[in-house]
Amino acid sequence: MKKIKRALISVSDKKYLKPLLKSLKKFKIEIISSGGTYKRIRKLKYACTDVSDYTGSGEILNGRIKTLHPKIHAGILYKRNDKSHCQDLIDNNFKNIDLVIVNFYPFEEILKKTSNHKKIIENIDVGGPTMVRSAAKNYDDVTVITSTSQYEELISELYKFKGSTSQDFRQKMSRIAFTETAYYDTLISNYFNKINNDIFPEKKIIYGNLIEKLRYGENPHQESAIYSKNKSLNIEQLNGKQLSYNNYNDIFAALTISKSLPANTGLAIIKHASPCGVSILKNDVECYKKALACDPLSAFGGVVSCNFKIGKKLAIELNKLFLEVIIGNNFDNEALKILKKKRNLRLVNASKFNPSEILKFSSANENILVQSEDNKVFTKRDFKVVSKKRPTKSQFDNLIFALNVCRYVKSNGVVLASNKSTIGIGSGQPSRLDSCQIAIDKMKKFKLTSSDIVAASDAFFPFVDGIEKLIQSGVKAVVQPAGSINDKKIIKFANETNTVLIFSKTRHFRH
Amino acid sequence: MKKIKRALISVSDKKYLKPLLKSLKKFKIEIISSGGTYKRIRKLKYACTDVSDYTGSGEILNGRIKTLHPKIHAGILYKRNDKSHCQDLIDNNFKNIDLVIVNFYPFEEILKKTSNHKKIIENIDVGGPTMVRSAAKNYDDVTVITSTSQYEELISELYKFKGSTSQDFRQKMSRIAFTETAYYDTLISNYFNKINNDIFPEKKIIYGNLIEKLRYGENPHQESAIYSKNKSLNIEQLNGKQLSYNNYNDIFAALTISKSLPANTGLAIIKHASPCGVSILKNDVECYKKALACDPLSAFGGVVSCNFKIGKKLAIELNKLFLEVIIGNNFDNEALKILKKKRNLRLVNASKFNPSEILKFSSANENILVQSEDNKVFTKRDFKVVSKKRPTKSQFDNLIFALNVCRYVKSNGVVLASNKSTIGIGSGQPSRLDSCQIAIDKMKKFKLTSSDIVAASDAFFPFVDGIEKLIQSGVKAVVQPAGSINDKKIIKFANETNTVLIFSKTRHFRH
Repeated sequence: MKKIKRALISVSDKKYLKPLLKSLKKFKIEIISSGGTYKRIRKLKYACTDVSDYTGSGEILNGRIKTLHPKIHAGILYKRNDKSHCQDLIDNNFKNIDLVIVNFYPFEEILKKTSNHKKIIENIDVGGPTMVRSAAKNYDDVTVITSTSQYEELISELYKFKGSTSQDFRQKMSRIAFTETAYYDTLISNYFNKINNDIFPEKKIIYGNLIEKLRYGENPHQESAIYSKNKSLNIEQLNGKQLSYNNYNDIFAALTISKSLPANTGLAIIKHASPCGVSILKNDVECYKKALACDPLSAFGGVVSCNFKIGKKLAIELNKLFLEVIIGNNFDNEALKILKKKRNLRLVNASKFNPSEILKFSSANENILVQSEDNKVFTKRDFKVVSKKRPTKSQFDNLIFALNVCRYVKSNGVVLASNKSTIGIGSGQPSRLDSCQIAIDKMKKFKLTSSDIVAASDAFFPFVDGIEKLIQSGVKAVVQPAGSINDKKIIKFANETNTVLIFSKTRHFRH
Repeated sequence: MKKIKRALISVSDKKYLKPLLKSLKKFKIEIISSGGTYKRIRKLKYACTDVSDYTGSGEILNGRIKTLHPKIHAGILYKRNDKSHCQDLIDNNFKNIDLVIVNFYPFEEILKKTSNHKKIIENIDVGGPTMVRSAAKNYDDVTVITSTSQYEELISELYKFKGSTSQDFRQKMSRIAFTETAYYDTLISNYFNKINNDIFPEKKIIYGNLIEKLRYGENPHQESAIYSKNKSLNIEQLNGKQLSYNNYNDIFAALTISKSLPANTGLAIIKHASPCGVSILKNDVECYKKALACDPLSAFGGVVSCNFKIGKKLAIELNKLFLEVIIGNNFDNEALKILKKKRNLRLVNASKFNPSEILKFSSANENILVQSEDNKVFTKRDFKVVSKKRPTKSQFDNLIFALNVCRYVKSNGVVLASNKSTIGIGSGQPSRLDSCQIAIDKMKKFKLTSSDIVAASDAFFPFVDGIEKLIQSGVKAVVQPAGSINDKKIIKFANETNTVLIFSKTRHFRH
């Protein structure tokens, strides 16, 4: 237990000061403060000493230097059980400060409010973090409070221990305090790196706010939580059971595809974080039916993501199938009513989801792989027709559509499409030939063969065999990134079979 | 340009002080210092004022309070172009400090050296980060140096600008300084969270040191870099071209499998971050041949990971195939000589790789999914025989082996095994039935059918159809996590076909 005799309060967030001050008074805790906090405390009619009076140093540099004074920091940092430390305090006529209540200027809010660099820099707090760090270091003797949400616990400690706090509480507050200072400087550092376009600095610091602990991870024996750079997720759950790790993983995969489709158009069905059916037909019900037709078995228990507002007609269709999650750019009231009949069905409004983060990262043991997203927007200039046969407008559109889907399929990926809809997806195979076979098998199984099939491959065909298999199964046009030593043979084969062959500029692996 | 008149130096790392001091002297820069740095500077015979003499405050609390003084911080923080600030300095008889050279006590090293909590806490630097933050905030006027590696650039600035530094340089140093303070407090915060077993704190801060920028990410149009919690990776490249993003991704997938195999035993072949052949036969060459036989087409251009030291005989075998990477728990000299004949072949010694990090995370847009690894070690108690037919010892061993491989296969995963080696792997399918079919097709294609086939599934079979397909293809024993509403039907089917059926306790999705 450590008795608190004197507290230093300097808070940017001035909520809940009243009950706090009342409790401090009850336990005869002296208060030192400065600036806006001092004024507020006096206004609330509590006794309080101004920091300048306390240190005897005037406040200078418009407040830039207030608490950076030995009388403050010795009072916080001295070890109460060290005789020479205690003697130092007596010799210098310094007094103990046992409680530090500081919250920083909300740097995060400032960044949102302004892009004025000078204003941002001016808001970097120097005195606050220093007091917090002093107090947190000396948690054996000092209590540090860094958020208004901790007042209640502090007050209850004071009451429980008659003006003292427990070691456990002080240690916990210290731990949170160092997280706060780390977080604060991470924001500053990331801001500087951002304005300097330094995406791979020598030291990379990634931060997140806990959104929620999840029931478990990919599997029940794994612990899990979801964090966000923001205070809340950029998606909103409107109905259903708690989202699971795998739901989130599928939702993010789904949204990455959806947001790559033409504005307010298109629908993707996701299972195991990979698409099993995608369509960009304008009519929403048709669009869903075509996406579903691509692999109706896999769609069972899947995630449907609509890049448009979900209406009544579609809701009726969707309700016919067991789905884990339905995502929309919001929902009509009528649609919502229909879908909410299934109490467990998770409905997610993703109208505010906007892929803004340019980097993604994944960890493996103590290592982190960081890369920019594959968010290249296709234009016709990225494609070169290398066959004698030229594509029709419709073929070209379908090819671009197929390649766009293919980039979101787990590699090796091969996608067959017709009429702005996928009709066969081969994914997750170590061999490209196998992915071709799977795509073809699916197309045949679900009777989707047509006279106008196009195919896309996420990377080049190493040999003729893959493209041969596709053409033999009715594919009339193929897009693939070039780069194989067999490119010429493949062009020759396309010409011999009167097939359209297009080389795209970029590879699109996704693992 | 900002002329430097006075510098404050306080460094834990005292390397390269001599050339630095020489340059400061040349430009008549006054030096303030304290403690060990002061002594070292005096020993090197350079003029220097002790901080205590400078501030007029004695050093107290055994050095805990030295630089936390208005004379120091006003000297750093005042705006040189602000008249009232300048007047404040004159009124208080404070002087400008234009250069702050501080590096912190190496907290990271302390954590490695000791687990003595008091010692660790004592090593939390308060004064250093405060000076660095003051200087970094006021980079318009002040230069801040936080690492000995920056001395050369500082000296060249001083020479180039005759005792001044440029705005660009000061801003860059400020940016790095805030990263240093963020990194420093992240280490402290993570240490506290670790000793308190708080794996999902309210604010999660993840850090990494840049190991290298990579040529590109998963694809050539994506930028990429690899970071580590440590100063270097826990793997060592002995030969070959620079490791690519996809190489690293495959290597980490490979090592996760390898390290789960029996000590110094087993070999996995990886393609697109998923295994295409695994064996745990004792004889190394046999082990490789069996793993390769599982899918010799996919193995082309793959990653071979040996959970043992690679010797000459195996090296000769490995050299017969085109591989991107070979990983071993080190290599014999003879093996190395043989493999190094292929100049581009990447050889990786992973003997020091030890899966120590309990959490893994992956980001999606501004969100981060965090979960503990699926590192459960299987014991026979985790398995329950639910069929009338009991497994033989060899079947049971093969089933556990197959399930262990299956947990590292992209979901849905189905693995067929025989004789401690995989003989068919179905991966990355949205439907379990498809994964069964792929595994069977591969087994048949490469003529690996035997009289003793076992099968593992990473999650339960929703219907009888999948297991039926397996049994019809010759599978004699199956392991799968239970949990389907059709479990009873599946047990019945196993009994009717005299098949061994085992339920494992845990699911093993991996996406």
